[in-house]
Amino acid sequence: MTTPAPVRPGSTTPVLAIHGGCGAIPKAELTPGADLAARAALRRALDAGYAVLQAGGAAIDAVTEAVAIMEDDPVFNAGHGAALNRAGFHELDASVMEGTLGRAGAVAGARRLRNPVRAARALAETSDPLLLIGEAADDWGRARGLVTVDNAYFSTPSRREALDRMLERERQGTLQAAPERDKHGTVGAVALDTHGHLAAATSTGGYTAKPVGRVGDTPIIGAGTWADDRTCAVSGTGKGELFIRRALGHEVHARMLYQGASLAQATDAMVHVEMMDPELTGLGGSGLGGSGLGGSGLVSGAGLCAVDHSGNVALPYNTEGMYRGWISSQCVYVAIHET
Amino acid sequence: MTTPAPVRPGSTTPVLAIHGGCGAIPKAELTPGADLAARAALRRALDAGYAVLQAGGAAIDAVTEAVAIMEDDPVFNAGHGAALNRAGFHELDASVMEGTLGRAGAVAGARRLRNPVRAARALAETSDPLLLIGEAADDWGRARGLVTVDNAYFSTPSRREALDRMLERERQGTLQAAPERDKHGTVGAVALDTHGHLAAATSTGGYTAKPVGRVGDTPIIGAGTWADDRTCAVSGTGKGELFIRRALGHEVHARMLYQGASLAQATDAMVHVEMMDPELTGLGGSGLGGSGLGGSGLVSGAGLCAVDHSGNVALPYNTEGMYRGWISSQCVYVAIHET
Repeated sequence: MTTPAPVRPGSTTPVLAIHGGCGAIPKAELTPGADLAARAALRRALDAGYAVLQAGGAAIDAVTEAVAIMEDDPVFNAGHGAALNRAGFHELDASVMEGTLGRAGAVAGARRLRNPVRAARALAETSDPLLLIGEAADDWGRARGLVTVDNAYFSTPSRREALDRMLERERQGTLQAAPERDKHGTVGAVALDTHGHLAAATSTGGYTAKPVGRVGDTPIIGAGTWADDRTCAVSGTGKGELFIRRALGHEVHARMLYQGASLAQATDAMVHVEMMDPELTGLGGSGLGGSGLGGSGLVSGAGLCAVDHSGNVALPYNTEGMYRGWISSQCVYVAIHET
Repeated sequence: MTTPAPVRPGSTTPVLAIHGGCGAIPKAELTPGADLAARAALRRALDAGYAVLQAGGAAIDAVTEAVAIMEDDPVFNAGHGAALNRAGFHELDASVMEGTLGRAGAVAGARRLRNPVRAARALAETSDPLLLIGEAADDWGRARGLVTVDNAYFSTPSRREALDRMLERERQGTLQAAPERDKHGTVGAVALDTHGHLAAATSTGGYTAKPVGRVGDTPIIGAGTWADDRTCAVSGTGKGELFIRRALGHEVHARMLYQGASLAQATDAMVHVEMMDPELTGLGGSGLGGSGLGGSGLVSGAGLCAVDHSGNVALPYNTEGMYRGWISSQCVYVAIHET
């Protein structure tokens, strides 16, 4: 899995696509300054990942670099700027997967890795262990030279305010009405490299006031992250528990491989049909116990970025907006809402 | 997800199948006493789970009871009798999933839950959170009345001896030659209830001398555990990292749903073809960096128990033996090697 030499790129036209979370940004509440800062950050992530691809580098390294840029940026809910759990500290999840051999790495509940995605990338080198949790993930990364920081490094004033708001809502019993931006958010990237290989990476702080120890879909290979050179690479953002229950990433792959679905068909079906299913999201009054998943349509908020082996890109979401973008030799696209 | 009243079972003929780990038992090393103890334990697990089904209970409760029996039995690598990590303590993983709404629960790296599968079952009730890790899983379970114990409760003399052997092998550089029984082992159950619903549950202590914080496929919904009423319920045992990279459980489901494969075809393909793939298992000299997955054929040891919506059972394994059994109104089957 060594990065190929920059001077000998392959013949495939590379492409990279990213997301920075969906539903997190009611248009009316996004100031011009915040809007511009977010777009600039998305562009930096695209450029960093694409530079790897242009140099003939591996898709897995391109998605790692793109996600690391978003982890370092306080705009996004990953790394610096991550959401706080209900005890007031950060637990970070990340994963990567490459599509040739299916090598993968992941960390869950990390507390001190500045860039969780880099630990996931390092674990993917052998994929054994593949997933490390808690402080063991921090220790593993530090022993291999990855940068570790105090947990407070990840905090920003706006995330602390969001936690205060969520805990106040809990006291008042109005939790379901909390805005999406306080609930979740994730960053991710997918890429097709010049050698025709695919990869995906995802990173998150979870959601504001999440239970201590709660892990969503982000570090779950097959749910929040999947890559297979035969089909596609996928990174998801939304209600992680639902993504796990539908094996989001592997389901997109399976529909393409076994049903012959296109990338657009497979991803639209997941985001606009499966994740809107009232039985799954707990909105419907099924005869099997109902409830438990909250009574708000917001729980089905979902989006993803995906690229197939031909370089087609999909960026579907079912919320008001999704930080997103993609880049190829033909185009650089960045958007938050319709544009 | 409340268990239906015992007096009103449905009309489907129920069936339950279990495994207690594969490859863990070289025939020549299994004493008659150990052989009989293992068969008796398997029978107890089958009976406990089947009693739930006979009473009209839910598949998810049947698999939970069957797995809990095996967790309590020192014969198996789960709960009491679990493998020790390289630091000399136990980190336990478990998950459950039901096939009607896809509700699921899981714990990873638990240290004090006497029956990790019961915490997974309790989490499945709302599936939100779905996965809890580390001491947070213990705390969550204890707060809900589940039995917690000192970590030393899980230790047995034979597991301590196994750890000593493994650490000695590491010092001598003969780790790859370690017997399978020191490397992994998992327990699992799948069931079809009288209402036509499917469920799966899996629990493990991982493998002897595993890195602290390492998590395998057992608590990963889509890898070690999957259930969908349209197709099947699956619980896996083997090299967890490979199961994650192939999304074992969800792959079996997808082949049945989208390819029209039978349960036997889908499960045989995973155990006898996919898990023997030299590129995946690192046995082949691929051009992509090779190694990292060990140089022994033993790393591809794999098995599973599965049941489909028609009540067909599959118990494939590619190792010398697998603790296994299944039970229906027609038959009670228990085996370790060929028989």
